[in-house]
Amino acid sequence: MSERKYGYITFLSDYGYTDEFVGVCHGVIKRIAPQVEIIDITHGIRPQSVFEGAMVLAQSVAYMPHGVHLAIVDPSVGAERLALAIRTVDGSVLVGPDNGLLSMAVRRLGGADACHQISNPEVMLEVVSKTFQGRDIFAPAAAHLANGVAVAQMGAPVDPAGLVGVDIAAPRRHDDHYHATVLHVDRFGNLQLNLGPKEMADAEMKVGDMLEVRLEGHRSLVAFGETFASVGQGELVVTEDSYGLLAVAMNRGSAADLLGASIGSSVIIGP
Amino acid sequence: MSERKYGYITFLSDYGYTDEFVGVCHGVIKRIAPQVEIIDITHGIRPQSVFEGAMVLAQSVAYMPHGVHLAIVDPSVGAERLALAIRTVDGSVLVGPDNGLLSMAVRRLGGADACHQISNPEVMLEVVSKTFQGRDIFAPAAAHLANGVAVAQMGAPVDPAGLVGVDIAAPRRHDDHYHATVLHVDRFGNLQLNLGPKEMADAEMKVGDMLEVRLEGHRSLVAFGETFASVGQGELVVTEDSYGLLAVAMNRGSAADLLGASIGSSVIIGP
Amino acid sequence: MSERKYGYITFLSDYGYTDEFVGVCHGVIKRIAPQVEIIDITHGIRPQSVFEGAMVLAQSVAYMPHGVHLAIVDPSVGAERLALAIRTVDGSVLVGPDNGLLSMAVRRLGGADACHQISNPEVMLEVVSKTFQGRDIFAPAAAHLANGVAVAQMGAPVDPAGLVGVDIAAPRRHDDHYHATVLHVDRFGNLQLNLGPKEMADAEMKVGDMLEVRLEGHRSLVAFGETFASVGQGELVVTEDSYGLLAVAMNRGSAADLLGASIGSSVIIGP
Repeated sequence: MSERKYGYITFLSDYGYTDEFVGVCHGVIKRIAPQVEIIDITHGIRPQSVFEGAMVLAQSVAYMPHGVHLAIVDPSVGAERLALAIRTVDGSVLVGPDNGLLSMAVRRLGGADACHQISNPEVMLEVVSKTFQGRDIFAPAAAHLANGVAVAQMGAPVDPAGLVGVDIAAPRRHDDHYHATVLHVDRFGNLQLNLGPKEMADAEMKVGDMLEVRLEGHRSLVAFGETFASVGQGELVVTEDSYGLLAVAMNRGSAADLLGASIGSSVIIGP
Repeated sequence: MSERKYGYITFLSDYGYTDEFVGVCHGVIKRIAPQVEIIDITHGIRPQSVFEGAMVLAQSVAYMPHGVHLAIVDPSVGAERLALAIRTVDGSVLVGPDNGLLSMAVRRLGGADACHQISNPEVMLEVVSKTFQGRDIFAPAAAHLANGVAVAQMGAPVDPAGLVGVDIAAPRRHDDHYHATVLHVDRFGNLQLNLGPKEMADAEMKVGDMLEVRLEGHRSLVAFGETFASVGQGELVVTEDSYGLLAVAMNRGSAADLLGASIGSSVIIGP
Repeated sequence: MSERKYGYITFLSDYGYTDEFVGVCHGVIKRIAPQVEIIDITHGIRPQSVFEGAMVLAQSVAYMPHGVHLAIVDPSVGAERLALAIRTVDGSVLVGPDNGLLSMAVRRLGGADACHQISNPEVMLEVVSKTFQGRDIFAPAAAHLANGVAVAQMGAPVDPAGLVGVDIAAPRRHDDHYHATVLHVDRFGNLQLNLGPKEMADAEMKVGDMLEVRLEGHRSLVAFGETFASVGQGELVVTEDSYGLLAVAMNRGSAADLLGASIGSSVIIGP
């Protein structure tokens, strides 16, 4: 049964760059779907960090062309967790393990329209290992989906309501300040917080304010600036980052290094 | 003289990702063969580690589409070693230095059918440096081969019997246990051993057994499991890895970090 | 107004590989210009190192196919610096911030033929952040240029004479030796110096000479060899590197590690 074809497979994983894992998945895909184009979102997700992978995938899919979104961060590879193919309301398909990795991206793409487990041996490699199912199950299934094989051909339907989810911890408000969390640290040492437009409005934090930021034992008075260069070189700054979330950064330096902060660090921020 | 054309060049090297070496080779290839597609197997081979490159190339080519396989790990660049183009029995072509890097992949692809050195200036860049022959010799030769230039046009024939080889150290058996070696450590800290199906059968090691593993001064009783999640979180497990070799791993952690093991570490394993 | 189309966008940045920055820019480009092919030169430029990015870009463009060259190392993102699109005499287009990053590549490609700032909202994403303008301004502008939108449609013309430049520090000659600088350190630990063919001729340094090299407190007598393997394993060697510059290297090892050298280290070299 043939459905729509896809010109793109996007690909995110924690496979890193020192091994051949990513390249082998590319080879497997091109053998099945030579015409498809692969866009590597990143393979630098920290090993086995499902939450980080889910965040980055959800923030990235909006910028990707329509296609099959293949995502693999899979600490339970070979165990009981399901392999999933989820068609979303916007017409994309997400492929990956049922451990929450896909959950935030599904919401961003309008919710699940059809959800099936990947269990049909015809969409896998002939020999399926217990430890590299990106190569043996997920990549070939994504390639068959790109070729127009229907989501329903992947395996039995699964109730989307029963899928594993991950959630961003909600910040807590106390009087005029927030107890928040570092969601993500990027290569430049910028610290993304779980504070978005709603929280900024509620607490009346706006560009031009001076904020008190308490983080890993440091207590600093930091300007809420338009961008990194709103403050002097080597100074901390609070900005709205490129995904609309509050971030603690340093102009021409690394806030993460200065403050010794990492994903999960607690932050108290207020006027 | 024109031969068959190839739609793909796969590319493996120790060039890493911080420099422009890989990108420049891509540019050189696309100027000569705009229609060819490049699949990067990995460029994270440890600098100048010919053995690691040979292992990873041999394990990867089976998953790649038919094509020209370009591989560069070349500590003797610019010195006397030959540059090689080897057509294999399955119809692929391997391109790289004569230092053993290609040798295991040649065997995987059915053996050498034709072997020539790359010495024809017409398949190189006009100016050939002594230190970046990936750019100046190997990448352009691979591109011309993809364009249909015959292997015989690369240069003089070479006797495949005289090529440099690398070999996996054979494990030694003592009574009921093996003295083996760590062949490879991947990003997740999994330790691949030089023990395959034959050794597992000979020593009657099978899933469900408890094995004694001695490695870098540690002595552990480890379950032979189906996958990482066959044991509790943070526990060691012996599994058959995705290439059919025995591996020592940790569920949701790094066996390499725990044991202080690296490529070449000695292992004693038995019941 | 339509101009020539480009089949390639080359892409260099300091975005690294652990985040999704590069992948998101690829997605943005492919949504606007599905037919264009992207060649990643490297994304491993050290964070915010404009000089290193300018050097690597200039050395790489000569090996790239004709196209749009997108380069992003942008410590002043969101501040007053201009976003530029520069058509060069050879018919390529360079896209990036006005901080010197493009300046050496412009010279390599024959000089600027037309130079415009990127300020037309029609060639940007609808929402433009202050902190990720690679995604919001530079990548979409590059994609529109590849689609045949004229450089003049990007925004107001800019006088090329007023652009920010970066320059390689000139070496100083004292009697028979040079005071030089380490321009670049690659993955193999090779140290590229700011000494080219002219300086080698002036000081009559040639292959076969023994040179005295003083670097980070080390004083060594080093052979000027044809390639790394011109000296014994683990020995230092001075060679002409693949870009025609003098380099201090070690055969099968890292000169940078041995000498504790890095970009900017001072070198005194002479007979």
